[in-house]
This record gives sequence, structure tokens and C-alpha cells, in this order.
Amino acid sequence: MSSQSVASLQTEVNRLRHELQTLKVEDQSPAAGDTIFVADYLLERLVQLGVTQMFGVPGDFNLGFLDYVENHQKIEWAGNCNELNASYAADGYARVKEGSIGVVTTTFGVGELSATNGIAGAFSEHVPVLHIVGVPSTAQQKSKPMLHHTLGDGRYDAYYKTFQQFTISQASITDAVSAAAEIDRVLTDCVVAARPVYLMLPTDVVHEKIPAKRLKTPLNKEPPENDAETEQFVLDEIMKLIKQADEDVVILVDACAIRHNVKHEVAELVKKSGFPVYAAPMGKTAIPESYERYGGIYVGSISRPEVKEKVESAKLILSIGALKSDFNTGNFTYHIPISRTIELHSDHTRVQFAAYHGIGMKHLLPKLTAHLQPLSDNARQLSVPKFLSPVPEEDNDIISHSWLWPRVAQFFKSKDVIVAETGTSSFGMLDVPLPEGAVFVSQILWGSIGWTVGSTLGAALAAREVGLGRTILFIGDGSIQLTVQELSVMMRMKVKPIIFLLNNSGYTIERYLHGEKAKYNDITNWRWTSLLTALGGTEGETCQSHLVNTKDELDALLKDEKFNRAETIQLVEMKMETHDAPRGLKVQAELSGKTNKYIALGLQTA
Amino acid sequence: MSSQSVASLQTEVNRLRHELQTLKVEDQSPAAGDTIFVADYLLERLVQLGVTQMFGVPGDFNLGFLDYVENHQKIEWAGNCNELNASYAADGYARVKEGSIGVVTTTFGVGELSATNGIAGAFSEHVPVLHIVGVPSTAQQKSKPMLHHTLGDGRYDAYYKTFQQFTISQASITDAVSAAAEIDRVLTDCVVAARPVYLMLPTDVVHEKIPAKRLKTPLNKEPPENDAETEQFVLDEIMKLIKQADEDVVILVDACAIRHNVKHEVAELVKKSGFPVYAAPMGKTAIPESYERYGGIYVGSISRPEVKEKVESAKLILSIGALKSDFNTGNFTYHIPISRTIELHSDHTRVQFAAYHGIGMKHLLPKLTAHLQPLSDNARQLSVPKFLSPVPEEDNDIISHSWLWPRVAQFFKSKDVIVAETGTSSFGMLDVPLPEGAVFVSQILWGSIGWTVGSTLGAALAAREVGLGRTILFIGDGSIQLTVQELSVMMRMKVKPIIFLLNNSGYTIERYLHGEKAKYNDITNWRWTSLLTALGGTEGETCQSHLVNTKDELDALLKDEKFNRAETIQLVEMKMETHDAPRGLKVQAELSGKTNKYIALGLQTA
Repeated sequence: MSSQSVASLQTEVNRLRHELQTLKVEDQSPAAGDTIFVADYLLERLVQLGVTQMFGVPGDFNLGFLDYVENHQKIEWAGNCNELNASYAADGYARVKEGSIGVVTTTFGVGELSATNGIAGAFSEHVPVLHIVGVPSTAQQKSKPMLHHTLGDGRYDAYYKTFQQFTISQASITDAVSAAAEIDRVLTDCVVAARPVYLMLPTDVVHEKIPAKRLKTPLNKEPPENDAETEQFVLDEIMKLIKQADEDVVILVDACAIRHNVKHEVAELVKKSGFPVYAAPMGKTAIPESYERYGGIYVGSISRPEVKEKVESAKLILSIGALKSDFNTGNFTYHIPISRTIELHSDHTRVQFAAYHGIGMKHLLPKLTAHLQPLSDNARQLSVPKFLSPVPEEDNDIISHSWLWPRVAQFFKSKDVIVAETGTSSFGMLDVPLPEGAVFVSQILWGSIGWTVGSTLGAALAAREVGLGRTILFIGDGSIQLTVQELSVMMRMKVKPIIFLLNNSGYTIERYLHGEKAKYNDITNWRWTSLLTALGGTEGETCQSHLVNTKDELDALLKDEKFNRAETIQLVEMKMETHDAPRGLKVQAELSGKTNKYIALGLQTA
Repeated sequence: MSSQSVASLQTEVNRLRHELQTLKVEDQSPAAGDTIFVADYLLERLVQLGVTQMFGVPGDFNLGFLDYVENHQKIEWAGNCNELNASYAADGYARVKEGSIGVVTTTFGVGELSATNGIAGAFSEHVPVLHIVGVPSTAQQKSKPMLHHTLGDGRYDAYYKTFQQFTISQASITDAVSAAAEIDRVLTDCVVAARPVYLMLPTDVVHEKIPAKRLKTPLNKEPPENDAETEQFVLDEIMKLIKQADEDVVILVDACAIRHNVKHEVAELVKKSGFPVYAAPMGKTAIPESYERYGGIYVGSISRPEVKEKVESAKLILSIGALKSDFNTGNFTYHIPISRTIELHSDHTRVQFAAYHGIGMKHLLPKLTAHLQPLSDNARQLSVPKFLSPVPEEDNDIISHSWLWPRVAQFFKSKDVIVAETGTSSFGMLDVPLPEGAVFVSQILWGSIGWTVGSTLGAALAAREVGLGRTILFIGDGSIQLTVQELSVMMRMKVKPIIFLLNNSGYTIERYLHGEKAKYNDITNWRWTSLLTALGGTEGETCQSHLVNTKDELDALLKDEKFNRAETIQLVEMKMETHDAPRGLKVQAELSGKTNKYIALGLQTA
């Protein structure tokens, strides 16, 4: 039986158990007469999941629902400039507010379809996002008139079919009677699978009243229990391999350790076992990078040599939550045989060549940790390279990539949220360690340029709420142009990110991949230091813009106390060389170039 | 047999004829050895269709193709800020450059999905747009590695399935051998059906060489011939009804008369018959609004009373290219019985209650005109209300909607391209006549806010090329925020639209539909007159910003000669009242309110 079918069976078992439980409460409840609007039912469920912000754009089929949102005491409407940005914000919010979900509300057709890329990205990168769409009334869904926002041919199901591709669960609510169960079903799937779900709310249903008592049964947020017998077998297999390896084991932490909410379980495992631990790029900060047994980022051939050597020479690799995409593995250059690999995933486990579907890491990890406690000291004696990144001495004033990333690393504080745009910024950040409690946010598998602007808004709102520190964004002048209007929403919502804008005159990552001097990689140079005021800020009061041309200027700014305090949104335009790039990107581009066939047409120098 | 299946059969007949014709040329051609890169083959076909601009965003799977675009002599790369805007631009370009198509190029996953809303809008409104997507190599399409921009689960067909919903033809090119036939197939469908199509170009195939001689057989741009016997029957039926009506016939022109390229045929019909003619909102400027037998806009209950009376009392309505959506029909308030209606469409005809599938208007119209020439003079004696819109005298300084639209109508010149954003602007524009040769561009069925910004870029590029006049955009402060970055591309491409920005503090159309005072309809107030410079312009040189607070200030600006000459891009911020709206919108909102059920939550005054 495939992993997917086991998982879907288990999901169904969970749903049925939840339904049974709700029925019991409904039977016993003395206040059987309490009712609630469908809209409010949904909002209460979101509150139970820890949601405090809703992103989105008003549109005529969601205005009725938005009245309930606006009236709600615990959920704030963030009102984005467009739907793509809103979906990015919901994604960023969900990443930083671990254990909760992001929510984006759009309108039928025109609104929801603008969010497609954002929802697909959340699917790809395992981020729990609820996409609520205000749709025409149930009567209109049946009669299918040629309303605005329709395709003009009566196909009212085309958008639903679209989101079937990019969400793990969909609900088209057609009446008040089934509304609560449908809402519960998609929300549970969203949280448990850490993937986006899709919910159609007709204009009339939101105003209908349903029994409220169902809310007393909380949603199940945990993945299903593993089958005990299989789990025990898997544990025995793993322990056997660890012993055979003489405890020469390294742990490799990746994206799904964060997204499937096992950071705590991993930390316990790491601490108790003493095994050296490394992170894949998408797993950066899953383990605090200040941890003494942490060696840095393993990314195949792009790894620092000492990391590559240590990881690939270990007798056994315990991989947790891997997503082995090209950019996350140095273009598929892991030199680790399957016979030396154990992989723990959210819904299955692999021990060497064997797959165990339905054995998920959330419940397996604590048991593994318990087994590992009586280890000998072998593990603790394995050396771990120090993850350091000293600022190099360079004999020029130019803000180079080789200097920039180590320098900003010293600027970061504990609990900062650091958002790095796909491309130069995400590659640059891999080589530098982040302080204790810092959170790294990037989109390395999906890699949609411009994503970080919306995502920073969501991340900053979440960070403010959960007591994290500053939100700091690194983005190039090419990428920010895609989604720039969201800066105005940051100012309206009074979040105060520091935005480092790498002004290198165009799409640098693409120049490295192909077309180094092609005009299509050029962009218009904006007046970056005028941007925040044009978008509604007041320079020196509600926003602050900085221009730095040299290392010294940037250094001085990074030391400036007021700048460090981040009391308003700040944008730092950094002038950089067009053809400079971080080490990792250069190597990745060489590796990618071998994959993508390009021919020389006289345009590019490469 | 349904209209759709007849149409698809005829499309297949056309394709096979084209294939046969190409084979004949291939057989006879002496230069049988000439070859061409697949990328160049595609570009040559586009040139043959009159394409001179390509919109889009570079991304790593389309960079190889873009080398060919950049090297091409006749096609210019417009390089947009994001893919949604690029798809809007392609749509606007196709609308103004009638008979050609719009082209947008994106990259796999992240790029193409951002264009979903734009492509769906082109589908809904019958606009021919080619969506080219640079996709991974044919080898990768088969092995399905976890590349960046994938969903991480090996589903390489999810994006294709998405665009199946929103395009009429799709081609996933898998080898060089079939490439030319596949390109020809989707391009023909695009032009003939006036609908978007989807073309996947793998990174390797673009560089492969194929025989060039096929290019000598031009693509078929015309719809298939009607079946002669059925067509004659339909003509007889129509003539019979016209005689029964004592030639008391009115012609009603709608969107598809423009999009399916029969403006010329309609003009002949109107001129030779002398029948009074009216336009639906989406058909505005299909007939020059200065034409003496033209009475203005018919939009059901929202029509001016004299238009409503004339249209609805006619004994017969000859409707050409109707798209009877809610906003195009005064919320479905046509008071015209089917027994008095003849409908001509691109692929079928309706005479009273009878449908004739496969009888399209392109070939039917000239024959109908030929039959109508010997009409008596009855038709010419039917009176037509004058379409006038005098500027009202108002005893205040506020720029009101009742004053604004008649006033700007006097500012328009022959051949201006007037783009009106969905909402206040499109409704405002319906009540005023446009001069000879002016082109009206709006998105009344799909109605995606922000669409006009991208669309204006495309429209202005097309207008410059085909010798039309100024491009003039009317848009609200809410809508422009969705897509604002495209202003910078306008400056880079050196088009010079005049942008009238209605600053009324939020989403006014939505306030009218619901939530008059709701916070979700508020937006951040930007510094509009600083925007063009922030986005790269130089005030007074490459751009010009104006602020007008009163009627007198706007009046003076509209009379200013330099302003009229439109030598750079200009943005005019007009301060308007938050709760004012054009007449048509107020009536529409009342009608919509009856359809969408909202309840009072104490937020809105309505």
C-alpha cells in the first residue's frame, strides 16, 4: 500500500473519530439551543488554531464574510494590496507561527486565481495555509448565471478544479447543515498535513445559523498514531544500524522538521544522543546554529569542504524531514549511499532500502530518543567542524558578497527573523551562522521571486505576536519589483522590518544561470530611497530610508544604535556589483548549467 | 449536435487542411534543406500574425528561448515587473491590435501560475493571447526530478491541467519533429477562436532545428465557412422576420463583434441597412459613437430612458456578438422577448427560439448585408435618440462623477484609446460618447481590479504601432495598488499614457455593493504625485505628475496644450468624494444588492 493511500485512510479514520466525538458532545450538551453564524463558526475554529491575522483582498463575493471578520475581537484583517501578496503573507505567517496556520481570503475567480502561485508554493514547501474564497450564493452555484468574475460559459467549477492541483483538501460548502463538518475537515487536514486547503464560502451560507456546541470538541492537530507493531520493528531496525555503525552517526535536519512541527522532538534527540547535527538549506535554524554539536549546512557539492567530508564519511545518516530538491541538495550531489541512510518523514520512514508507510516522525522521534539514551560515549566523541564565518579583509570599498554575509551575520541578534529572497540572498545566507533562537525563512524549493515581500509582512506580524525579535529581509532590486506594493501594508500594519535591498541592477541569479549580459535580465532602476514615502510613509517618522555605497557606510549603519532598534520600517539600499554573487550561487549555477542546455547566441559571455 | 462539438469538428477540419497544404509546399519546395531553430519558427509565425511585442518575465526555464527573442529583429521584449501584469499587457495589446494576438512568456510553475488570473480573463472576454511557458527539458519531463519550481511530488502536469481550464488549446511540445505542427495548431486556435492558448517550450527543444519551408504556408486566420444550405435557410428566416417587423429593427452590437473581428462587416451592415444601432457596454466603440444612426449604450434597466424605450419597443432586435453578463445587461434586465430576437455569434446563430450551430457571423454578416441592400426607406425613418452628454452646471467646486465624465468626454480626441478600470471608471464612461475612431477598452465581464494598469501598457504599445492616438487610463486609488509597478515599464518602453487617478480613498465600487463604511474597503493613501519618480521617472523630463482638487483645476489642466500633447507619461491625481459614484454604478449596485444577500452587522449604513 502506498504512503499516500495509508495516509488518506488514516486521515479518514481521524475525521470519523472527530465526528463521533462531536456527536457525543452534542448529545450531552445542556445548551443544545446555542447557535452561531457559519462565518463565526469558521472564525472561532481559526482562533482555536491560534490564528490572529487574516490576509486577503475584499471582493464582492466575500464582503459579507468580511463583516464578520471586521467585527471579530480576536482576528485582525490585514487587507493586502493584491491576492498574490496576500497568499505570500499567509505563508510567511504560518512559517513563523509554528503550529498555527496562515489564512488568506479572496473573491471568486479574479481574486482566488491571482493567489494560485502563492498557494502552490505553500503546497510545495509544506506550509499550512487556508484559502477561503467568497463565492456566489448556493442558488447561483446551481443556476450558473453569467455573473462577472465567471468564464462566461457556465463553468462554475473551473477554479475549484484549479485548486485541486495545489491543495490537499477542498470543500465547496453547499448548505448550512454540512458547513461545520466541512470546515472541520479541511482545517484538520491543513494542520495535520501542513499543506494548503481550499474552502468555498457562498454569500448566503455565511449568514446562516448552525449549532455552536460542536466548537467544544477541539480539532485534532496531531498526526495519527503509528501502528505499534510496525513502529517497534522500525525502531529495532534503526537501533541495529546505529550499533553496527559504532554510533558514527550524523543527523541531517531538513525543511519538514520545521514544517511538521517536530523541532522540539529533534532537539531532544540531538541533545540526548550527542550525534553531530547538520542542516540542509531548507532546514536552517531547525536546530539552533549556536548549538555546540551543530556543524552547519550540508548541501552536497556546494557544502563547505569540512562539512561535506564529515557528513559523507559518517557510517550512518539519520535524515529528518528531507525535501531533496535541486537547490536543497547542491543539484542532487549527495554522496551518501542508501545503505547508509535512514529517513524520517511526516508520514513514512525509510530504513536503507525499506519503506514503512504510515510510520510518521512525530510519534517515532520521542521513542527513538528514549532508545538512544543509554548510548555509549562514542557519539559524543565525534568531532564537529565549527560553523564560523569571519568577516574577510578586502582591499576595496565595494560591498562584495564575500564580505556582506559574514558582516551582517554579526548584526543579527537572538530571535531575529531573517527572510532571504530566492537567489543571491538565500545562497548568501547559507554560509553564515545565525544566533540562538533566530528563525530563517526562505523558499528554496518553490523559489518564486518576489515571495519574500509578502512573506515578510506575514512573518513580521507573527513575530510580533509570538515575541520574536526584528524581522530582517534581504532582497534584490529585481525581485522586489514583483510585489513591492506590500511595503505600504507593512506601514499600515505598523510592523517594522529592516529591508536590505541588494541593488545590483537586475536579476543576478538568472545572469548566473544564463544570459549574463542579456537585456532581459536588466530592470529599471527605481529611486529606492523615495519608495517608502511614495507608498505612504513619512520619512523619519513612519519610515526610514538609507543608501550605502561602501563597506564603511554599511558598517557604520549596522553599528548605529537607532538603526538597530528598528523603531520604524527601514529600507537600506546597498549598491553592489552587477556580476558579483555569493559562493554557493556560483557553484549552483555551474551545476545547473550542466543540466539546462543553452546555446551561445553571442549574447552571453558564459 | 452542440455548438461546441460542431466548432471543434470544424477546427479539426481546418487543421487537417492546413497540414495537407504544408505537406504540398514541403514536397514542391526546392530549398528542402533549409532549417530553422524551433524558437525562431515560433517567432516567425508570430511575426506573420502581426506580433511585434512580447510580454513576460525571465525565469530560468525560459532564458534560452529569450535569447532568440532578444536577437529577433521584429519582436521586442517588453520585460514586465511580474507575470500577472504581463498577462494583462498581452490582453490589452491584443484588444487594441485587432486581428493580431497578445503574447506572454513565463517560466515553469512560479511564473505561469502568477498569470492564471490574466489568462482566465482573456478566456472569459474572448481575447486571443498566447501563453508561452519555458519548461524543463524533455528528459526532465520524463524523469521528473524534484527541481525548484516543482510541487515536490513529481506532478509535472499540474500546471498544464490548470491551464486546460482557462485556454482553448494546449500544446506540450515533446520533440522537435512535432513542434511546428503543434505550434501551428495552437496559434490557429488562438486567432480563429479569439481565446487564449497554452504552449510549453522545453529548454532543449527551443534549440533544435527543424525544416523551415512549412513557414511558407500561412496560418489560417479565418473561421470555417458556414454550411451553405443551412446558411441560406438562416438568411431566409432572418429576412422573413425583418419583413414581418416592417423593418422596425434595431441592431445591438456587443463585445464579440470587436473580438471576433467583424467590426468592418457590422459597419457595412449598419450603413447599408440604415437600422438604428446601439451598443452594449462591452461593445462600446464597436460602432463609432459619432455615427448619426447610433443611439448610445443599451444596458437593460440601467440604460438612459430614451434608449431603453427605443430598443425594447423595436419589433425586432438584431444582436451581434452578445455576451450577456450581469454588468453588461443591467443585471439581466433586458426586456426583450426571445420571439423578437436574432442573435449572431462567432460560431452559431439564433433566430427566435431556433439555434443554428456552426453558422458563424464572420461569413453570415456580408451575406445578410447583401440581402438588406434593397430595403425600403422604413428603416431610415426610425428615429434615434442623440447620444449627448452635456457638462452640468454645479454650484460647488468638487470633482463629482456627474460632472467629471461629460467633462473628460470633451477632452478626448479622435483615435484616442480610452481604458476604464472596472468599477466607477467603466460605469462613468458608459454615459458619455467617444469621438470618431476612439477605442474603448474595459473588462466588464471578468472585472479583475488592477487589470487596466497592465492592459494600458499593452494597449499603448499597440496604439503606437497601429497609429492610434493617446492612451488614456481612468483608475481608482484602490485598483492601481494591485499592479502599480507596471508604471515603471511604461516609462522604460517610452509609452506616454495619461493616467487619471480617481483618489476617493478606497474601493468605491465595493462600498456601493456592500460595506459602505467598512474598514476593509479602506486603503492606504499613497503620495501619488511622487510615485512616477520613485518608480524611475524624472519629473518634468520623463514623467509629469499633476494634482487637481477642484473642477476649475481639472478644467484648466484639460485645456492645457502641453498636457494635451502627452509627450511623457502623466499622472493626474484627482481628489474626489469617497461616497460619490457614477449614475450607472449606483443603479447597478441597487440591482446587485437584491441578488447578494448581506445582513446588517452595524458596520455599513446601507
